[in-house]
This record gives sequence, structure tokens and C-alpha cells, in this order.
Amino acid sequence: MKNVFMIGLGLIGSSIALGIKRAHQEVVITGYDQKEVQDIAQKRGIIDQSALSLSDAREADVIILAIPIEATLEVLKELADLELKENVLITDTGSTKSEIVSLGQQLFAEKKVRFVGGHPMAGSHKSGVLAADVNLFENAYYVLSEDCPELRTLLSGLHAKFIVLDAAEHDQVTGQVSHFPHILASALVLQSDAYAQKHPLVKNLAAGGFRDLTRIAEADSLMWTSVVLSNPQEVVERIENFKAQLDDIAQKISSKNQTGIKSFFDDGKKIRQAMEIHKGAIPNFYDLFVSVPDEKGVVLQVLALLQQFSITNIKINEENREDIHGQLQITFKTAQELEKAREIIKIATDFEVA
Amino acid sequence: MKNVFMIGLGLIGSSIALGIKRAHQEVVITGYDQKEVQDIAQKRGIIDQSALSLSDAREADVIILAIPIEATLEVLKELADLELKENVLITDTGSTKSEIVSLGQQLFAEKKVRFVGGHPMAGSHKSGVLAADVNLFENAYYVLSEDCPELRTLLSGLHAKFIVLDAAEHDQVTGQVSHFPHILASALVLQSDAYAQKHPLVKNLAAGGFRDLTRIAEADSLMWTSVVLSNPQEVVERIENFKAQLDDIAQKISSKNQTGIKSFFDDGKKIRQAMEIHKGAIPNFYDLFVSVPDEKGVVLQVLALLQQFSITNIKINEENREDIHGQLQITFKTAQELEKAREIIKIATDFEVA
Repeated sequence: MKNVFMIGLGLIGSSIALGIKRAHQEVVITGYDQKEVQDIAQKRGIIDQSALSLSDAREADVIILAIPIEATLEVLKELADLELKENVLITDTGSTKSEIVSLGQQLFAEKKVRFVGGHPMAGSHKSGVLAADVNLFENAYYVLSEDCPELRTLLSGLHAKFIVLDAAEHDQVTGQVSHFPHILASALVLQSDAYAQKHPLVKNLAAGGFRDLTRIAEADSLMWTSVVLSNPQEVVERIENFKAQLDDIAQKISSKNQTGIKSFFDDGKKIRQAMEIHKGAIPNFYDLFVSVPDEKGVVLQVLALLQQFSITNIKINEENREDIHGQLQITFKTAQELEKAREIIKIATDFEVA
Repeated sequence: MKNVFMIGLGLIGSSIALGIKRAHQEVVITGYDQKEVQDIAQKRGIIDQSALSLSDAREADVIILAIPIEATLEVLKELADLELKENVLITDTGSTKSEIVSLGQQLFAEKKVRFVGGHPMAGSHKSGVLAADVNLFENAYYVLSEDCPELRTLLSGLHAKFIVLDAAEHDQVTGQVSHFPHILASALVLQSDAYAQKHPLVKNLAAGGFRDLTRIAEADSLMWTSVVLSNPQEVVERIENFKAQLDDIAQKISSKNQTGIKSFFDDGKKIRQAMEIHKGAIPNFYDLFVSVPDEKGVVLQVLALLQQFSITNIKINEENREDIHGQLQITFKTAQELEKAREIIKIATDFEVA
């Protein structure tokens, strides 16, 4: 019988616990967090028992850290001072990997401890144990810094897609697709605000495109400060590289290079289209476009047909003509659901489905 | 009786025509476009008669150009060679203003022609005369390069919010909130694609934040090339300014300036929140956030309560935990509708409304 020690019972830790239990009722999960949180988690059957202190981790076969990056680094050091079970498996869930995996390897090199870095790439706007969701990681990528069949098996109930990525590669990839974009979004907000001092209508005329570009600027600033400080080199490298991208297009604009500018926008469009919809390579980004008349009740009508599916987004793209296609854009969690939904709408309505 | 000559019967021209007729049935609208388009517009009552050639504009009291920027510049020159009515009013709808207004003033300086630059800041994903929508400009900002009571009156049926902005100011503001963001989005796509050559998982691990940042990269590349070429100085200036922004945050990251990085993200968050929701300064961006349980049918339940309202967007923010709050985010067209909807949800459900 396996003993799992879950450090951190927020959204991630609690949801992982639920996922573990879904596939392995026999696993005993001990939770470690503030007392009030432990109580809630135990009452809700998320964990089986509450730890009195970190040293209860000595009983564990598997230790999972579901806490912020800085806390992860601290707790790993504390765990290294404990007399842990032989061949215990320790894993984390941090948004960056190099710093954590490097420390883990360092601390546990001489011990019979297996450390595997982890990063479940999913979440929700909600936080805390009350938001625990057994389906949180469904179809989400779960990165492991090295392959670990035991961990994959333990976490099979998460229904996540496990991929192995060494820590450095992980930080480079997430640096590009996640960390640097957060910098971009916030920088655009700050730039616009500064410009608004002399051009006040900046605050009024910002429309759909601006809104989408800057939405993630409202993310948790504490968390993002930690993430960026934990992956500084890659982020700065992406910033420098991006400046070169900007120089390139600025030069084309200054020299009125119409062909060059058109290629810039054409390539961006083509590549972006290929990234998302045609390949369906991004989990949870299965979009169906339905052309609907501008009448009341139409959205409800379409949604009523699709109640059995896991819809994550319904966008009635009230686009500025300077932005692009909207229509009714319905996002499903899986390709199969999208296809079924497409068929249903084709049969039950005369709405055009892209 | 006023004669209006509408050059261009695409989405914008047709929708403006419908708006004019809504408030002024007595106005006679002559449409100028390809024959097939004129036929459709006339059949649908969008225009009263079809022009045989541009010279029919000689009869017009008001001439409206609803065509792309480059075509606008060309047609203005052609109009300048015609014997137009004395005191004819000419206006355009181009996305940039300096180039067009400058030419208009130049061409018509010695004539009894009033030229007023215009930019209705609205649209939809649809295009063409078949997409004509009398409500397209409802609550949208309609920029005029100088005040023109006659034009405001003629276009009163559009239900737009007219604001006067000199051409240079317009191009600076839209350069910041619209043109430069398009450059950013495409540049991020291109950067990511280049990086994906060595880091292929960039294509798979891009999530919600990346998707939102790059969505407008799928805009009409021909149109955006024109826009950028028509406002080159402002766009390049914003690019240079942005590089300085990037240098600033890169420096903070390299020097591990935690306080500085936190302020960067905090300020971005605060400013962005103030831009959109609390002030309701952006037309059509009246958002209601409802915290709903993760159950089937819940979205339908909420929407069924809100059928009487003009909802433009329902976002079930399936966010990555690294992004921020989503919840059920419902966008209304007016503040009044938002408030009514808030009350209804409070009374009819036990869902938390932010």
C-alpha cells in the first residue's frame, strides 16, 4: 500500500490528490498545509489524514510538493535533512524546472532518493482547496524532467498527457510560450498608460485586440515575479531576441518595404493558424466556428444542443473590423467532442459551421 | 432633400447606409461599387439607386468613402477633378487619418468642398454587403478629424459616440492601441515559430495566454500592411519606445531586482484593471463575472436568465493557473444591461457575482 505525502493542499495539490484517488483508492494520502486547510481537505475526502509536521514525510513512499517555487526550494532542503524512506520518490509541480531540479539533484545525489521534476500545465482561475477539481488536468500536458513510470501510474487518474522534457528545455519552451508573453502583456499596458498621459484617449479607444493582448497582465504578480526570477536567463534572452524581431519590422516600415511588411503579417497569420486549429496540437483548443444570425436566443439554442459536451469557451466575436473572425467560437476539450458537436449542429440547424 | 453618395458598399459602407436611413428616410443614397454589389444593396434597400460612374458624385450633397486606405487616396484625387456641388461634404472611414486628411485638405483647399476625416471604430468578422448591420456602430466610437454637426446629424442613426480628434492625435492613439499591438502579436508568432525549430514543443505547450496574445495575428494581412504603411512614423516610434520598456524590465530581471519586477507586474495589473472594468470607459466592454460550479447545464442556466440582453461574449475562463481569473465572464453592450443582469443573477441563483 502506497503512502503519498502531499505538501500543499491548494488548487493543484488538492486536485492531484483527487486524481490519484480516482485511479487508486488504495493509496493513502497524507496532506500537509495549514490546519484549517487540512481539515477541509480531510472532510472532503481529498486526503486520508493530516500531517502534524513535515517530518511525517518520513513515512511516505511518494512526496509531492504543490507549493510556490520559493517554498519548494526551501522545503526540498528541509526534506533533505529528514530520514526519508529508502527509494522515496519526490516530485514537485513548479512552473520552472531548472532551478528546482538542479537543487533536487544536488540535495539527493548521495541518498536513495529519486527526485523527478514535474509541471502539470493546467489550472483554473479558482484557487485553494475548495476549488479542488478531479478533472483539472484532463488532457493537459504534465511535464516530467525524466521519465518515471511509477509517477505516471500513480497520477494516471489525472488523465493528463505526460511528456518528458529535460529541465533546461522545459524552461526554454515555457520561457517562450508563457513567461515572456507575460512580460509582453504587462509592458504593453505600462507603455499605453505612459502614453495616455499625453494622449488620454488611449484609455478609451483600446478595443478587442488590445484587450486580448493585455489580459494576462492581470495575472498573479507575486507568482509571476517568482517565475521570472526562477528563469531569468531564458526570459532575458527572449526579450533580446524579440527586440531584434522588432528591429526587423521597424526597418521594413521605415523603408516602406510593402512586400516585406505583407510577408510579416502573412507569415504571422499562416503560422498562427497552423498552431492552433488545423493541427489541434494544443490540448483544450478544439474550436468550432458557427456562423449564427444576429438574433436573440440563438446562442442559447446552440448551447442547448451541446449540453453533453465539456465546453470551455463561447466567444461571440463582437470583433472590431480591424480584428478577425469571430462568429460563435465554441471551444471543446477534445477533438472527439468537437466532431460530434459539429455533426449535431449541422443536423439540427441551418447554421454554417466552419 | 439630401443626396448621399456612398463609395464602397462593403460591410462599413452598407452598414452606414442602413444607419443613415434609420434616422433619415428622406435621404437619397446613391451607391457606388461593383455592379453585382450595387444590385444586392439596392434589392435590400440599403441604397436607393446605383451610380453608373464616379462622376455621379457631382449630384451629391455628402460623399462618403468606405473603401481601403489606398483606394481612398486615389478616389479623393479623382473627386478633386470633378465639378462637385458647392459646399459638398466629403468624409472617409479609413483606419488612419493623417495621410488622408492631409490629402483632403490639400486637394480641396481652394474649392468650396468641406473635407472631414472619419473613422468609425467598429466592425465585425463578417465582410461585404451581405453582412450589412444597422447596429454595427452602436456605442462604438466614431472619430471625426474636426467637428461637423451636419455629419453627426446625418449619421445619428448609427447610434455611435462621436468624438473629435485631430488627425495626428488619432494616428498616435490608434498607433498605440491598435496598430502597434498588431505588430507585437505577429512578432511573437514569428519569434515562437523560429524558436520551435530547435524547441519543437513550443508548438504544443502554448496555452491560453499565448493564444490571446497572438489572436490578432490572424487579421487581414493586406489591410494591416496598408494601415502600417499609412502610419509608419507613429508605429516605428512605438516600437522604439517599447524596446526601451523591454530594456527596463530585462535589466531588473538580470539584476534580480525582485521589488522592481513585482512593481512591474503589480502596475500592469492595476492599470489594466482600471482600463477596462471599473471605469467601463471602453464601449461594449461591460463585463460581469459570475463564479459558477463546474457542472453541466450551468452556463445554459445563466444564459437562459439573460436572454433579453445583448451579450457579446461568454467566456468560461478555462485558465491555466498561470493566467488569471476567468470564471464565467459575460460581456454586455451597455452598463445598464450589466447592472440589470447582475441583479437578476443575484436574485435567481446563489452564484457569486464579482
